[in-house]
Amino acid sequence: MTFVKRTELKMFDGRQIFYYDREPVERSAVDTRPVEPRPLPGEMRQDPLTGEWIAMAAHRQGRAFLPPKEFCPLCPTKTDFGTEIADSTFEVVVFENRSPSFSAPSSELPAEVIQASGRCEVVVFSDQHEGSFGSLELAQMRTVMAAWIDRTREISTLPYVEQVFAFENRGEEVGVTLNHPHGQIYSYPFITPRTSKMLQVAQDHYDSTGVPLISSIIAREIKDQVRIIAQNEHWIAYVPFAARYPFEIHVAPKVFLADLAGLSDEVADAFPEIAKEVLLRLDGVFGIQMAYIAAWHQAPVRVGRDVLGLHWQITSIRRAPGKLKYLAGSESAMGAFIMDVKPEQSAQQLRDVQL
Amino acid sequence: MTFVKRTELKMFDGRQIFYYDREPVERSAVDTRPVEPRPLPGEMRQDPLTGEWIAMAAHRQGRAFLPPKEFCPLCPTKTDFGTEIADSTFEVVVFENRSPSFSAPSSELPAEVIQASGRCEVVVFSDQHEGSFGSLELAQMRTVMAAWIDRTREISTLPYVEQVFAFENRGEEVGVTLNHPHGQIYSYPFITPRTSKMLQVAQDHYDSTGVPLISSIIAREIKDQVRIIAQNEHWIAYVPFAARYPFEIHVAPKVFLADLAGLSDEVADAFPEIAKEVLLRLDGVFGIQMAYIAAWHQAPVRVGRDVLGLHWQITSIRRAPGKLKYLAGSESAMGAFIMDVKPEQSAQQLRDVQL
Repeated sequence: MTFVKRTELKMFDGRQIFYYDREPVERSAVDTRPVEPRPLPGEMRQDPLTGEWIAMAAHRQGRAFLPPKEFCPLCPTKTDFGTEIADSTFEVVVFENRSPSFSAPSSELPAEVIQASGRCEVVVFSDQHEGSFGSLELAQMRTVMAAWIDRTREISTLPYVEQVFAFENRGEEVGVTLNHPHGQIYSYPFITPRTSKMLQVAQDHYDSTGVPLISSIIAREIKDQVRIIAQNEHWIAYVPFAARYPFEIHVAPKVFLADLAGLSDEVADAFPEIAKEVLLRLDGVFGIQMAYIAAWHQAPVRVGRDVLGLHWQITSIRRAPGKLKYLAGSESAMGAFIMDVKPEQSAQQLRDVQL
Repeated sequence: MTFVKRTELKMFDGRQIFYYDREPVERSAVDTRPVEPRPLPGEMRQDPLTGEWIAMAAHRQGRAFLPPKEFCPLCPTKTDFGTEIADSTFEVVVFENRSPSFSAPSSELPAEVIQASGRCEVVVFSDQHEGSFGSLELAQMRTVMAAWIDRTREISTLPYVEQVFAFENRGEEVGVTLNHPHGQIYSYPFITPRTSKMLQVAQDHYDSTGVPLISSIIAREIKDQVRIIAQNEHWIAYVPFAARYPFEIHVAPKVFLADLAGLSDEVADAFPEIAKEVLLRLDGVFGIQMAYIAAWHQAPVRVGRDVLGLHWQITSIRRAPGKLKYLAGSESAMGAFIMDVKPEQSAQQLRDVQL
């Protein structure tokens, strides 16, 4: 990182916390909450029907559910109520999840259980309780990017991690349990089903054309024009040709990159502007805050790094004011998606929003 | 079918409707609603990132959304309001979906569009407006089975159908737009992503063991015992070892079968009893009507018929009263499921319900 200062501290129970600051702020606040034991790693089970791995995180059932603002665990600590962040202000903070679905391997589990090894982190976008990624100042969004880049780089060195996944869930409609603007980083000990499939298709494409798949897709979007939402020198945003959700937008760097860790400062600097535009357009379609999942697709840590390209995927289940798209029988049980809105139509709606 | 009478009639717009009756009832009611054109087949697009097919059914946006009981389109026609079923009573009815995601190929579409060929049917479980599959009388459930068996057999003969999928969505939490007890049959012109994956795993298992995968899974469940919910001579119900949902139950015939069309009368006769028990136990866990998706996994029409076994999969996103499991970042974007409840624990909860 060229311009952001990172300070690493410990939380009350030994978890790591990282402060990311544009200015060289001194960070030394101590987390004085009473010590409590951390949950043991959960287990993973392989589905005999599909070969896919399912993480069993039974300790997550008791986690906080939409607490009132004064008990928000992601706000800075300003009163006697000790939050997850001991300092009274911060810019961007990342810490290990208190109830992680995946965590560092432990020797305390019985040998016959396959541990859900990995690492789960919370990325707090701001010390202000209201907002989401798109409502941040551009400079603040850039600091969040610096945190994503740094965490991707560092977590990728863990021997038990195969894939790093940074994402933001926004809105109670997608199960958000804390309203404070934040995202998460899940690091898996396996390659996830969707990435595995994308990897196979991307490898086939590369083998037959010598071009990364995402580059061919971008070329096609530029040729077709009709699904493009926004672009600048380094990034392009479009509704994908075969979108799965009523509103789905992909934002990709114009030059192939495997992951966030490979972003140059110049390309990273150009992201906040297009990200903000895209998210403003999304909220503008119906004039309401849209629930969404914003997901960074990255190449796995050890394989496919020449073929699977970084892109940011935003999906919203809002198909009209008061109407959600539910994943019912066809989508949920068969993985076969039915779309109610044509991609060209939703792209037009997004372009038509007056900013 | 050995004991059910089927009567085939036409609806006002030319769609087919089938009445299934245990007794030889005369069915001849005419659908007198004013003629309106049927929607053209939608298109399908292949996702370049995954190779998967997405159906584009833009004509579905205007479909009925939780109408009041007097305007329920699935009730029998008893007043001036003409419903989808012209008769004033019925036992079980199946008709072609008015806004189908997949329909018979047409020559009217431009050549460059890949048509969403297939067939979508609605299965109305009763002429009573309240209830769901599990609340039917056992004999009525058996008639629904007869309809599923008949429709699977007949639709499997269509040259443009590769897979037949019968399912029931129950509860507004999974997007149900009509409360009248009903299910649907989707018939796809491709093998769905989940079936495709199951097929590959099942084929590998068969090649290395000579035994269908579902038979090995059932043997393991009988050995482990802890996840079994109910069984009778012909069927077994269990929470799968690597369940994806807080409550997930699989019900499988004890002897391998490719699909519903292959069910003998004896095995079909034994299903309603175990299905009712399982659904009563599901509602009993929290003492509320549980939202669920009940999905019949069947072998595709043309391939894998020796290796992929029929089973009925019930999944519920209800993890506690007032709490739903949402498919957020990890599940939705990566296909990687995180479970909050261990399968042995939910199996225990289901067994503990007093019937």
